Amino acid sequence: MDIKLISNATLKRLPVYLRCLHEMASSGEEYVSSVAIAENLNLNSVQVKKDIAVVSSSSGKPKVGFKLSTLIHDIENFLGYTKTQKACLIGVGKLGSALLSYKGFEKYGLQIVGAFDVNEQLFGNTINGISIYSTAELTEFVKENQLYMAVLAVREKDAQSVCDELVKAGIIGILNFAPVNLQVPQGVFVQDVDIAASLAILSTKVKTVLENK
Amino acid sequence: MDIKLISNATLKRLPVYLRCLHEMASSGEEYVSSVAIAENLNLNSVQVKKDIAVVSSSSGKPKVGFKLSTLIHDIENFLGYTKTQKACLIGVGKLGSALLSYKGFEKYGLQIVGAFDVNEQLFGNTINGISIYSTAELTEFVKENQLYMAVLAVREKDAQSVCDELVKAGIIGILNFAPVNLQVPQGVFVQDVDIAASLAILSTKVKTVLENK
Repeated sequence: MDIKLISNATLKRLPVYLRCLHEMASSGEEYVSSVAIAENLNLNSVQVKKDIAVVSSSSGKPKVGFKLSTLIHDIENFLGYTKTQKACLIGVGKLGSALLSYKGFEKYGLQIVGAFDVNEQLFGNTINGISIYSTAELTEFVKENQLYMAVLAVREKDAQSVCDELVKAGIIGILNFAPVNLQVPQGVFVQDVDIAASLAILSTKVKTVLENK
Repeated sequence: MDIKLISNATLKRLPVYLRCLHEMASSGEEYVSSVAIAENLNLNSVQVKKDIAVVSSSSGKPKVGFKLSTLIHDIENFLGYTKTQKACLIGVGKLGSALLSYKGFEKYGLQIVGAFDVNEQLFGNTINGISIYSTAELTEFVKENQLYMAVLAVREKDAQSVCDELVKAGIIGILNFAPVNLQVPQGVFVQDVDIAASLAILSTKVKTVLENK
């Protein structure tokens, strides 16, 4: 499937659908319609239908809908949850440590196989079974383990230089928690988990409501 | 200003512009054009121009551009960074603890004034100067301190019930880190910091590249 045909907006909605479908499945339902998903999530049912068509070849039974288990399998398969990718994490500060213990990564198909920091006191320690190494060993580790993905949780000022090193070593996907606009060559993808951006949207909405009270 | 006139997409770009402008300012520049911002961030300059027009009344000098300090002030003012809002945080697990130490919140105009958990052993402790209380005291705390915003970092299974409690107490803006589609009444805003969604986008892109290698 051509990646260009799938919008980021659709990709972002897929994990949301998945959570909704799992909730429905655990409450005993067997079939679900795109209308029911749309109502549950406050989305447009035409959009839900289109999104599902991208990831699933199941067309659903008239008046009954899609088989829940099939739809869940198709979305998980599409998102790669069923086939784990290995990754490294760089920056074992407070956020990095929390992320090493984050159960979501494995659930979402990402297995952190090594963590890196500049703080000598951390070398040799493990968090959640993951060993912490010196960043001096990063390039070799990425190459030896044939890693393509990395989680970046370093400080703002170090983010670009670590990013450059990762790209040189062969990383093509970076999940970035540092509040920095990373510059990467074509063919390398950066996805920001940008708390500032989320907060900006929320604060502005709240502020507007309060000002009009 | 009517909130409906500002798209989420614009709101999300504003913190990104801000980082770019601060970088330019610290490298000694005094003026900046929308074209320069667009080039730096790989965006369309028409879009950058439109976004700036929403938040700043400065029209910029021909051939010179906008005064950097004015533009930074206008965006920070628009995003509420210059006027701090108070908030509470619920769920002092690994992620919650990391968030309590997160310097970004204050920088982005959010001041966490109290943290809440169900774990008795945490009551009375402080992290980064913020006291941890029992969730039994949550409603009273929100009302007494006239809070409108909350950061939700509780477990998946507790998220909806805590959310309901927050809404009842008067919270209208929730920054949600739990992987749950929260249901809220109209007039209440939820902004998800969804690691799963970000990872879904990234993994799919990387997977497609690897499959076509």
